[in-house]
Amino acid sequence: MNTLRFLALAGSFAVMAPALAQQGTKADPAMLAKIKDEGLNRSKVMETAFYLTDVCGPRLAGSEGLTRANEWTKKQLTDWGLVKANVEPWGTFGRGWDIEKSYVAMTAPYYHTMIGAPKAWTPSTNGALRKQVVVVKAATEADLAKYQGQLRDKIVLFEVANPPKPSFEPDARRHTDEELKKMADFKPEAPTATPANTDMEERMKTRRAQAALRTKLADMVQAEGAAAILSTRGGSDGTFFTSNGAPYAADAKPVLPELEMAPEDQLRLIRLTEAGIPVEIELETRTRFQTQDLKGYNVVAEIPGADKKLKSEVVMLGGHLDSWHAATGATDNAAGCAIMMEAVRILKATGVQPRRTIRIALWGEEEQGLFGSRNYVKNHFADPATMKLLPEHEKLAAYFNLDNGAGKIRGIYAQGNEAAAPIFQDWLKPFADLGATTVTLRNTGGTDHLSFDAVGLPGFQFIQDPLDYGTRTHHTNMDTYERLPADDLKQASVLVASFVYQAAMRDQKLPRKPLPAAKPDTRM
Amino acid sequence: MNTLRFLALAGSFAVMAPALAQQGTKADPAMLAKIKDEGLNRSKVMETAFYLTDVCGPRLAGSEGLTRANEWTKKQLTDWGLVKANVEPWGTFGRGWDIEKSYVAMTAPYYHTMIGAPKAWTPSTNGALRKQVVVVKAATEADLAKYQGQLRDKIVLFEVANPPKPSFEPDARRHTDEELKKMADFKPEAPTATPANTDMEERMKTRRAQAALRTKLADMVQAEGAAAILSTRGGSDGTFFTSNGAPYAADAKPVLPELEMAPEDQLRLIRLTEAGIPVEIELETRTRFQTQDLKGYNVVAEIPGADKKLKSEVVMLGGHLDSWHAATGATDNAAGCAIMMEAVRILKATGVQPRRTIRIALWGEEEQGLFGSRNYVKNHFADPATMKLLPEHEKLAAYFNLDNGAGKIRGIYAQGNEAAAPIFQDWLKPFADLGATTVTLRNTGGTDHLSFDAVGLPGFQFIQDPLDYGTRTHHTNMDTYERLPADDLKQASVLVASFVYQAAMRDQKLPRKPLPAAKPDTRM
Repeated sequence: MNTLRFLALAGSFAVMAPALAQQGTKADPAMLAKIKDEGLNRSKVMETAFYLTDVCGPRLAGSEGLTRANEWTKKQLTDWGLVKANVEPWGTFGRGWDIEKSYVAMTAPYYHTMIGAPKAWTPSTNGALRKQVVVVKAATEADLAKYQGQLRDKIVLFEVANPPKPSFEPDARRHTDEELKKMADFKPEAPTATPANTDMEERMKTRRAQAALRTKLADMVQAEGAAAILSTRGGSDGTFFTSNGAPYAADAKPVLPELEMAPEDQLRLIRLTEAGIPVEIELETRTRFQTQDLKGYNVVAEIPGADKKLKSEVVMLGGHLDSWHAATGATDNAAGCAIMMEAVRILKATGVQPRRTIRIALWGEEEQGLFGSRNYVKNHFADPATMKLLPEHEKLAAYFNLDNGAGKIRGIYAQGNEAAAPIFQDWLKPFADLGATTVTLRNTGGTDHLSFDAVGLPGFQFIQDPLDYGTRTHHTNMDTYERLPADDLKQASVLVASFVYQAAMRDQKLPRKPLPAAKPDTRM
Repeated sequence: MNTLRFLALAGSFAVMAPALAQQGTKADPAMLAKIKDEGLNRSKVMETAFYLTDVCGPRLAGSEGLTRANEWTKKQLTDWGLVKANVEPWGTFGRGWDIEKSYVAMTAPYYHTMIGAPKAWTPSTNGALRKQVVVVKAATEADLAKYQGQLRDKIVLFEVANPPKPSFEPDARRHTDEELKKMADFKPEAPTATPANTDMEERMKTRRAQAALRTKLADMVQAEGAAAILSTRGGSDGTFFTSNGAPYAADAKPVLPELEMAPEDQLRLIRLTEAGIPVEIELETRTRFQTQDLKGYNVVAEIPGADKKLKSEVVMLGGHLDSWHAATGATDNAAGCAIMMEAVRILKATGVQPRRTIRIALWGEEEQGLFGSRNYVKNHFADPATMKLLPEHEKLAAYFNLDNGAGKIRGIYAQGNEAAAPIFQDWLKPFADLGATTVTLRNTGGTDHLSFDAVGLPGFQFIQDPLDYGTRTHHTNMDTYERLPADDLKQASVLVASFVYQAAMRDQKLPRKPLPAAKPDTRM
């Protein structure tokens, strides 16, 4: 049955020509002008971004910051007149974790305060430590043996893979016309076993081997009785990348305290140690685990549909509210959430009467594997492991996502949905003056629209100017409010509001791709 | 007498055509090849830079780091075979100051460890403080009144003049051919009262007014009984600029503890406070003053001249060894010192027998006003206040300086010395393949060759590629070893060694400009 239904769906939209795309809608051009006016001239997006970043703070999965953000966004959406605002549990996530203190300095050969932060879910040190350091380098498992008996009560330093150096490229950039044209010209091809795929497999193999070695290394360091670990994933100029240092599972086995460091500081320690100069570190971290509530949550709220027939259908928009812990997750992804919230605020302010119901979702636990959105989809629409469809599956008109930083919207990834592409082309037309013109059939990955796409629902991510997302802010300690250009956020809010409005007013839901086959091994 | 002597000097060199410039020298072309080979293929400049930066540490005027650097460089120069190595006092500087602890974090509304460092010569906090903050903004003196009674026991935040934002320009760059041509084409003009000068006066006036307001502000904050100050001079991405926060004079009046902060952290505190959200700071700084030895020092060492007639004459080369305190002063100016030390190491390694004596000088206390070099010049050559020349004044053949970061040498500033320019052109010829081709008559300021120029001695600074000196490293917490590109330092070492060699082998000392008039108000 499922197969027949999807062949029918795919067929009915494949014949829809671009010129016809705007037929069959009750979208009002005057409303688009109102959306633009409200979003560009009476924006609140930066105020919302301020609350999400500075006021709520870092929003690691399960943390107090994320709880604050859940409560604040629920209240703010309600204050703007949305209904059914709810902090909705999606299932079991794991332990909450917050930092209560983080201090690390070199105290010999001379004093130097250093830049670093505990890796997520790592434990506290036993008060303030003052210890000698040992540099541990291992290219193979055999290299581990030489550290036996050397690490007791020491602070272990791991190597720095990519030392910083003077940068001749700008941190931030915008998409060029050429890049956008290349995206627009993209034609999907049938997947083949190309050399690129072999390369990818080779890289994955190397990566798995490195990860396995890293685990053995950590186990060895712990078994040898080291006091703590300092490591570096990259960065420069006082910026460093952050990640998790231990599982969030409630029953995870204990690990050592571990800090991620600014590479400049880590490298100085390593150079001194390797030159035979004794280095002493003072280190104090205090972290707090929370195991009372192991559930994960999403925040949802609605603008109810006004059309008797269509109001049971839903247009969704969303972004993930959780972040990493060493900054306030401004571009990843307070920006996306602030824009989505601003889009529904704009729509409420314009007095819109959408035919369909509009539902915003602010996802939790995206950074650990899209958990909030995947489980929301599983709970409401379908489990990709079985592809047994729930009744709501039929009712979802579209899902729009934002999670590629703070850059303005230049277009949209149609995610291989050839029938949706011409519709998006039409919807973009009124916004060419704002720089948003490109529809690409390309897929883009790594974020929450994939959860919808995985069960055959039309989920889309917008194309955004990259700015300094890849170089400076994504998962770093410098993902702060300063990285949010107000004009970019305003533009994006207007674009999203208009897309959501169009999807809510259209006679038909957005076309869908054929239903995918069940994937019994899908991770949740 | 002085006037006659200088007219004679100026006349004798003005007739020297470029083609003749290389006549009258015993410089051996084979020696230039040896210098290049030693400097490019057996360089020790990065090892020297490592010792100056990582091992000696920050080298603030009067600090323990600078004392370590003085002792280490003296020993290293001696080990390389230089003679008369000496840590030579130049007079009274002031108090030594070192950091023993620096910790600053936001503890409410949530925990966030912050990036900052005590301003130089500021005192310790009274142990670890936990205090509320107040933002103080003052555009005029009248604005100060409104804070009366508001600041007791508070941590005061000053504004951020230039908030960071995504950067679309690269941090680092090299001189373009166009820029170099413009420098080469530069013709000195008689100084006139141009509008530019008026602008400059206007700017200086504004700056003086701002400084005066800043002093009044600091006095008011202290009089009101505040606990400490957090301020920001600029920077981004975890990089912040540093400066002094109190006079280094032994009898300076006490000030409040004050930290310079990463702008991102400072701005978060300010935004939260201005939104009415109570912010609490935890702060502990421990700084150590040293008043046993108030003297300042320069390090000097020599390669003795081999020519009976000329060995009493001296070719000098140098750079300043002191730095600011929040990093290891890699580009400002460990780079310059490492290159100068490498130049004399190269010369010793080639077995050079220079006709004149070669003397390296590593200056102290440059950052506070070129004190090391100015006083060395006053003690050895002449006091610009009287222009009474000491006997050594006649004996100095040339002084070469490096202090514009870690970029390779692209040429030399002839400092308005038209007779020296063609000589430098000739000396650069063998190094066109290394990118050093430009002689400009332009002056360049801000560093130690000015001390020589001020008393009519031929002092010169090389043209260097800017790299990220102006944007990222100069006086920041990120002026670290990573910012030193080995190839640039090697090239510069070869260029300097060759210039020093040429100046030591030439029949005549370098031509001089006319003696300047005495400037009785010259600051020392």
